[in-house]
Amino acid sequence: MTKKKVYQIKVEWGDCDPYGIVFYPNFYKWMDNSQWNFFNKIKMPITKLEKQYGIVGLPLLHTEATFLAACYREDLLNIETAIVKITNSTFKLQHIIKRNNKTICYGSETRIWAKKNKDTIISSTIPEKVKMKFKKILSVEIKF
Amino acid sequence: MTKKKVYQIKVEWGDCDPYGIVFYPNFYKWMDNSQWNFFNKIKMPITKLEKQYGIVGLPLLHTEATFLAACYREDLLNIETAIVKITNSTFKLQHIIKRNNKTICYGSETRIWAKKNKDTIISSTIPEKVKMKFKKILSVEIKF
Amino acid sequence: MTKKKVYQIKVEWGDCDPYGIVFYPNFYKWMDNSQWNFFNKIKMPITKLEKQYGIVGLPLLHTEATFLAACYREDLLNIETAIVKITNSTFKLQHIIKRNNKTICYGSETRIWAKKNKDTIISSTIPEKVKMKFKKILSVEIKF
Amino acid sequence: MTKKKVYQIKVEWGDCDPYGIVFYPNFYKWMDNSQWNFFNKIKMPITKLEKQYGIVGLPLLHTEATFLAACYREDLLNIETAIVKITNSTFKLQHIIKRNNKTICYGSETRIWAKKNKDTIISSTIPEKVKMKFKKILSVEIKF
Repeated sequence: MTKKKVYQIKVEWGDCDPYGIVFYPNFYKWMDNSQWNFFNKIKMPITKLEKQYGIVGLPLLHTEATFLAACYREDLLNIETAIVKITNSTFKLQHIIKRNNKTICYGSETRIWAKKNKDTIISSTIPEKVKMKFKKILSVEIKF
Repeated sequence: MTKKKVYQIKVEWGDCDPYGIVFYPNFYKWMDNSQWNFFNKIKMPITKLEKQYGIVGLPLLHTEATFLAACYREDLLNIETAIVKITNSTFKLQHIIKRNNKTICYGSETRIWAKKNKDTIISSTIPEKVKMKFKKILSVEIKF
Repeated sequence: MTKKKVYQIKVEWGDCDPYGIVFYPNFYKWMDNSQWNFFNKIKMPITKLEKQYGIVGLPLLHTEATFLAACYREDLLNIETAIVKITNSTFKLQHIIKRNNKTICYGSETRIWAKKNKDTIISSTIPEKVKMKFKKILSVEIKF
Repeated sequence: MTKKKVYQIKVEWGDCDPYGIVFYPNFYKWMDNSQWNFFNKIKMPITKLEKQYGIVGLPLLHTEATFLAACYREDLLNIETAIVKITNSTFKLQHIIKRNNKTICYGSETRIWAKKNKDTIISSTIPEKVKMKFKKILSVEIKF
């Protein structure tokens, strides 16, 4: 229950398209924002992980979203983010976006524990200490 | 072979994040752009469909992307877009993004044939004439 | 003193460029957001003005910004917005962006009271009632 | 005449706001893009300047724009960029944005020759060789 962390945003004018509804790539921007917030809230700020483990952020392997209802300017949205899967070098965040407690979009980001190798970015094993922390807050993925 | 349409973009400075790589929601923006280009190229410009059939654009039901390699400022990308599935009121576009002929990202957009109903947007049956056209250019979804 | 209204934002990862600093067009996005917040706070929400006076928003005539210091991801910024000039059909908002009470950017937006005229947007006289309200909260433009 | 360099963009759906017109911060994004194109065209790519002179890009000191007409999805815009002023450590680019040869927006970016100094970015004297090149292509600022 407390394993998910909530990030709140307000839909602004510039987030909306000529139909007056949110231009959908913005939902992904907000998921990305929510990821940052999530790591802050679980007391593993990404900036600290970078310094401690030499990672180059947590680049994306796969993202996905399903849209249930349109959102409009000045809507207040809550993004509930939880970690729902851990593998050797990846993890999956589920994001559920709600307006007035009603889900309007849900999606996920599968991210890589990544390091720099010369000029490229390669996946790398998640350190045991990080994995333990992730496991402690692992949630069951909600199916829709 | 000729059923896919190609949209070209150049990655710009402002599309990249502090790691110097494309901030991923931009890939979705480019898929959306490529959709517009696709409908122009098949001679069914969305603006014309709006007037002719009273649709309110082609809102998203689901989007997805898999990222194979990072992209950097000034990269030239080709987005190959094809229609790969048709249902009664939805269709699916597959987008394959290439740099120097090598796939760096692939994804899809499932969109709704949508009309306005008072204050909401509802899905609606794709007219027979449009469906016929879609079927003519239907491609096999490429599996990765 | 109370004539200015404050809008707060947190700089997010996706707002920053490969140098790790805010990509500058985002400052304008935040000024635009702050404008919406300003009109809400003075109890003249733009959506209400649209219905009441038939305006098509408050389009821009001129914008300007001076940048004093770089901003980074996770910076908390306060945007202080005030109305500093009124003419027959335009008004000017000054935006002062602060981090920890220190100005890091200041700028302005001169906007038009605009109506639709067939297919174009034309400037129009600000109604007396609106002008009166604007005058009541008129602030002196701060010079830097 | 040949001192200005032209960058072309097509207004896309996601660049437009609920009034169907370009959300104005995008004009600044396009000016920034045009700056990159300008430096490529004068054979001084910014990436090369970074390596050669150790600059951290060309951060902004001041930007400005005046909007003469609204732009809509699928508009083709030409951005004409020229260097119009040089000081010891700054230079000014003028950008004139045209649609069908008619100016719809004009503005400028004043940028700094900047180096990193510990954790901050400081302005620095433009090297003589760069200044000479800039002077060769210096244009007269067009007044509107």
